[in-house]
Amino acid sequence: MGSLREPCMSVSLMSASEAQSAAQRVMARCDALAEISESAGSLTRVYLSPEQLRANARVAEWMQAAGMHTWQDAVGNICGRYEATVPGAAALLLGSHLDTVRNAGRYDGMLGVLSAIEIVQWLHDRQLRLPQAIEIIGFGDEEGTRFGITLLGSRGITGSWPDSWVTHPDGNGITVAAAMQDVGLDAARIHEAAREVSDIAAYLELHIEQGPCLEQADLALGVVTAINGARRLTCHFSGEAGHAGTVPMTHRRDALAAAAEWMVFIEQTTREHDPQLVATVGTLNCQPGAVNVIPGEVQLSLDIRGPQDAPLERLLSVLLTQAEAIALRRGLSFTAHEYYRIAATACDARLQQALSHAVETVQGRSLSLPSGAGHDAIAIAERWPVGMLFVRNHRGISHHPAESVRAEDVALGVQAWLQAVHQLAQG
Amino acid sequence: MGSLREPCMSVSLMSASEAQSAAQRVMARCDALAEISESAGSLTRVYLSPEQLRANARVAEWMQAAGMHTWQDAVGNICGRYEATVPGAAALLLGSHLDTVRNAGRYDGMLGVLSAIEIVQWLHDRQLRLPQAIEIIGFGDEEGTRFGITLLGSRGITGSWPDSWVTHPDGNGITVAAAMQDVGLDAARIHEAAREVSDIAAYLELHIEQGPCLEQADLALGVVTAINGARRLTCHFSGEAGHAGTVPMTHRRDALAAAAEWMVFIEQTTREHDPQLVATVGTLNCQPGAVNVIPGEVQLSLDIRGPQDAPLERLLSVLLTQAEAIALRRGLSFTAHEYYRIAATACDARLQQALSHAVETVQGRSLSLPSGAGHDAIAIAERWPVGMLFVRNHRGISHHPAESVRAEDVALGVQAWLQAVHQLAQG
Repeated sequence: MGSLREPCMSVSLMSASEAQSAAQRVMARCDALAEISESAGSLTRVYLSPEQLRANARVAEWMQAAGMHTWQDAVGNICGRYEATVPGAAALLLGSHLDTVRNAGRYDGMLGVLSAIEIVQWLHDRQLRLPQAIEIIGFGDEEGTRFGITLLGSRGITGSWPDSWVTHPDGNGITVAAAMQDVGLDAARIHEAAREVSDIAAYLELHIEQGPCLEQADLALGVVTAINGARRLTCHFSGEAGHAGTVPMTHRRDALAAAAEWMVFIEQTTREHDPQLVATVGTLNCQPGAVNVIPGEVQLSLDIRGPQDAPLERLLSVLLTQAEAIALRRGLSFTAHEYYRIAATACDARLQQALSHAVETVQGRSLSLPSGAGHDAIAIAERWPVGMLFVRNHRGISHHPAESVRAEDVALGVQAWLQAVHQLAQG
Repeated sequence: MGSLREPCMSVSLMSASEAQSAAQRVMARCDALAEISESAGSLTRVYLSPEQLRANARVAEWMQAAGMHTWQDAVGNICGRYEATVPGAAALLLGSHLDTVRNAGRYDGMLGVLSAIEIVQWLHDRQLRLPQAIEIIGFGDEEGTRFGITLLGSRGITGSWPDSWVTHPDGNGITVAAAMQDVGLDAARIHEAAREVSDIAAYLELHIEQGPCLEQADLALGVVTAINGARRLTCHFSGEAGHAGTVPMTHRRDALAAAAEWMVFIEQTTREHDPQLVATVGTLNCQPGAVNVIPGEVQLSLDIRGPQDAPLERLLSVLLTQAEAIALRRGLSFTAHEYYRIAATACDARLQQALSHAVETVQGRSLSLPSGAGHDAIAIAERWPVGMLFVRNHRGISHHPAESVRAEDVALGVQAWLQAVHQLAQG
């Protein structure tokens, strides 16, 4: 692309000092939201909790201060609209989530909602309206911390809640429907949260990377190409336990030795296959599990992800075939059970291009990268084009109190996002 | 050796039909002792229990029927003596143990004591006396099931009980001294169990193999070259946990991937080093242990054994050096803590030769093999020359109710053992 146009021809709409002020406000508001937690001294804010209502109320105040009309929708998302030049026009939807994992960091989700408010604030300060409206949404549930089911907020606006969700219980046996009632929502009205396809032109989300790629590339911002698809499997090698002292090496049917050989293959093959694919063995249990007994049984998990489903499937097939070959050669058996699968979500090409151009404007060059973690954009992509902007995240640490971002990176993020929104909202 | 003498020149002293009868008696007595258990339907007989006293009494009856003078010694071993041509001569000591693990098989230990009685029975039936006396001992504790300390019986006759043992508690807080009192023994007299070095000429033990080597070689009997030395270590790879979706393969510091690479090296290197060495990773724990998190920490055990200490140490050194190299290359740290060490015990060359010759006489050829499991001979070897004869054990299964031996193998064992004893007891 670079050869077809002059590099860095665009000038940032938002000045560096304006961006710095915006970023300081975003950081302060992340700190303020981090205080709204079910537990003192750590951040946990789950769907349909009193804390969610309090966070929604704070965010609504900040939206209103930025000139937005606000409402809480039928599934508990907090929503705001900054009207277009012509009232009632389709909206560019900006957003992320306001719920957290347990003992969370303060940026995952919140950073996107609060940065979006700065974009509207900048337009509002200048009394600028665009051909498209700007809407902001703070989703009530992305993490699935309370109910174990995820993306409840974004599936509210797509209108794709399965019927079974309302009776799904939390860890205390409280169903989604009962929990909705506790916070003044009505499970019978969930469908009212759904938006018309024509209401929304596109969805843009800003989020911390949750990985180390931008830090490694020494860049504040990157543009997401796709949200990785994933497969999760429970795998099992079954051999024969034996006395660690009396069975010669050549006579063993050691399930752990087989698993080790496979794990080495998984790592090497995934590296060689495609740099965007990842495969992880995160759990391993060996039986009988005594220092002086050859393991007869090993159960291990395999988590494999990539930005496109076809290469992911090919890699998975190669890995499973090799596991069977290892087992056969060693006189063991191997089984694998896939218990979770999510398709890859491609980001819209036009939105990627607009975001990349905006990122080039503010940081000189852009980096395209897949998202290894899941996001609300997965659900939204079922109805509308999606684009995502990533902000550098120190050491890739997220879902942890040590999660951190730099204010100067947030400033660049707000600058770039405004740039892209301003271009795209021309309609 | 074969080239220096005519093969199979010797003729077995005990006829095949005599051996068959002896083996049937041994099998029946193994069954009878298996009934003496603290639990109905399974075999558990521990040191200083009422069951031990009952088993000792039965064994003493069988010894007496074979013409032996019997006594229970100061640590609870049951002992018998078949006098030499000249009373008071040094004895050839035959034996094994009568205690068991929990839910045990019926041959591990008992087979050696009961087969020894058949040797004396054969001499007694013929009124034969030899220049050396024959003594039989049924050790009260080899397995260490009750107190967690092992070889209490054999260390009684070597006089090498540490002072600390008498105050050592079992799982119910009962000390060895108190348990001795409960069965009529006196901890103050433990030293009286010790035998003079000059009392005993040599020690010979018959035992099930507890491994698959004889079965693989299609042989009933083998001669032990050494009881393997062992080292046990707790090892630790420390890397960095991370998100399984967001950290590219090349940026990971995955402790489980490092451990897998090392486990493959352990297996390959041990195989290539020396067919008599074995190395086992029997336990592995990875943290945080979630399907979607790269393991940051792995703790695993290493159990390594071999019939000679020097090659064992060399292998261990190679393995640990490689673990450090793997950790260094991957940006992890590695530590290893050795918490258990037992030196290898060589069997006496003259006794091995006599046993091999006897085995050749009864089964055509002999097989020399190390013992991967520990035995009373480890303790006895501190004072006297030791030799061991192994009997084939189906699938190498021991310490389990499925432990089994064939009566025809026991018949060959008794024949061979008599042959060796008759030769060696000439003095």
